[in-house]
Amino acid sequence: MSQYVAGVDVGGTKIAAILMDAAGRTGAWITWPTEAAGGPGGVIERIIALIKFIMEQNGITEQQLLGIGLGVPGLVNSREGKSVFSPNLPGWRDIPVAAMVGRGIGVPVIIDNDVRMAAWGEKLLGAGRGWDDVICLTLGTGIGSGIFIQGKMFKGRDESAGEIGHVTVEKDGPRCSCGNLGCLEMYASGRGIARLAREALEQAGSSLLLELAGGDAGSITAATVCQAASQGDHLAQQVVAKAAMYLGIALAGLANILNPQRIVLGGGVMGAGELLLEPVRRAVRERAMPLNREVEIVTAELGERAGAIGAAALARQEFILGEGRSKWIW
Amino acid sequence: MSQYVAGVDVGGTKIAAILMDAAGRTGAWITWPTEAAGGPGGVIERIIALIKFIMEQNGITEQQLLGIGLGVPGLVNSREGKSVFSPNLPGWRDIPVAAMVGRGIGVPVIIDNDVRMAAWGEKLLGAGRGWDDVICLTLGTGIGSGIFIQGKMFKGRDESAGEIGHVTVEKDGPRCSCGNLGCLEMYASGRGIARLAREALEQAGSSLLLELAGGDAGSITAATVCQAASQGDHLAQQVVAKAAMYLGIALAGLANILNPQRIVLGGGVMGAGELLLEPVRRAVRERAMPLNREVEIVTAELGERAGAIGAAALARQEFILGEGRSKWIW
Repeated sequence: MSQYVAGVDVGGTKIAAILMDAAGRTGAWITWPTEAAGGPGGVIERIIALIKFIMEQNGITEQQLLGIGLGVPGLVNSREGKSVFSPNLPGWRDIPVAAMVGRGIGVPVIIDNDVRMAAWGEKLLGAGRGWDDVICLTLGTGIGSGIFIQGKMFKGRDESAGEIGHVTVEKDGPRCSCGNLGCLEMYASGRGIARLAREALEQAGSSLLLELAGGDAGSITAATVCQAASQGDHLAQQVVAKAAMYLGIALAGLANILNPQRIVLGGGVMGAGELLLEPVRRAVRERAMPLNREVEIVTAELGERAGAIGAAALARQEFILGEGRSKWIW
Repeated sequence: MSQYVAGVDVGGTKIAAILMDAAGRTGAWITWPTEAAGGPGGVIERIIALIKFIMEQNGITEQQLLGIGLGVPGLVNSREGKSVFSPNLPGWRDIPVAAMVGRGIGVPVIIDNDVRMAAWGEKLLGAGRGWDDVICLTLGTGIGSGIFIQGKMFKGRDESAGEIGHVTVEKDGPRCSCGNLGCLEMYASGRGIARLAREALEQAGSSLLLELAGGDAGSITAATVCQAASQGDHLAQQVVAKAAMYLGIALAGLANILNPQRIVLGGGVMGAGELLLEPVRRAVRERAMPLNREVEIVTAELGERAGAIGAAALARQEFILGEGRSKWIW
């Protein structure tokens, strides 16, 4: 009888699930709307229903499913299996999500936050595969990271390590939702790049960028900026250059502090590809210390499926291969 | 027969040595001029002579000395017992200092860089005692740190981690000797604070600070700045506030990345005491993420003896208690 685990990635707008077999092969990826307004109870019901649905679709019985990996946004207490707080999920405070999902399906559940699950995906099956000292960033609406030191995920005492998005890169910069001024997130996240573009447009007046956004500066996204930049729009290129400079400053600092072998950049913003990556690499080479600047900086390989794949891969380690740390299981 | 280890801290201007017994008690501290111009051979002869001298002074035989801990400035390969490069010691490149000193005395030698040895001192016998996740900074002529994660020193792949002094805090700031612009060292090291003071004096013209320096702006040090600030000199107070702000920015970033329990600040600059510490704590509370801002920030306890005490304490762990990692011994 074949053995499986499920990986689930809960986001503010959608829940994604994937199955993985004992050999680490993944099946089809399914997403459902989160319907976050339904509160923790409603969302958890949807998580359970989605897992049952994907099992049914693949003809997998409860006996064949050995465990579930679950990524949730925000601050997580992985030891206790709790979502401590999630700004993107209304009402989520101290929710014992691992126990609730585990009871609903009848298998053990390992949880962590969505960014760390995506990092696990890249570390085990993506661009971080085979590297011991690797840091995987997600540059999405916000910016977070998963830090691997000697092959192990480093989370810090309160599971609050890796908050590279909230490192100050401009001491008098705009105020971030975290309360700090000039956080990296204000410049290099999806939201930050869109903000930089709107600011630049206020000065410039017109640009291909504005046309691509249908004349509405408010609907500009990081994707619009990258599209305009790749089509030669000077204003958009300047915005990308600015985001890359700030990202380079933060990554050089990270490299100076942690001396990693490899930094993997994922998330929607990395749709920009070499347009963003090349100036980031240059900034790190210019700013980091001699040995630290040798860090390799590469794009992630798993795309938007990284979180669900990582959750499944971690569950596979834990529940099929038995390599994990059982204290993390609820 | 009592057992001892020796701790030696090699600096650009002086070499310090201390003896430690099996119970962790230290004897008198002795310093000699380094005479760095003599090159690696000359300095290593002086290290050996100083160790022999302190043994003789204390009536300790070769049989009673079980090992030596040795801190050297710059980049170290502790596994191979080599000083890779030291900007403060002319001619030091790939010097097998552990082997040379070990052969000279006839005991094993464990080496690391001076900042990490000072961190070991604070971790084992000073302000970091009893804490698992603690970062110990030395704010001296330059700025460096030793990072402890779950009680273990984290050095990075190339032993180049912890370079917090070269994190960018002002993207267009002055150029640092490392090549980067606006490194923390340019603002909060002894040299950085003196530089800020000279800059401020150029604008202001006169100040108590200038009087304290005998009318010569070129002879201002961080100590002069602190003295003037504590005597109410406005210009000096502004310089200290600026240094504290930049240090706070860097420590908030460090706390966001590593989520430590405690940060210990040592080195000559900390002679400023609460004058510097209080605004640094405030900046970290204002800038770090909720859980990360709870990090305790305290001054070091061992003063200028931290490096030699740390080297001795590490040697004691390694050669008397047998808790160390033998691969680090030459």
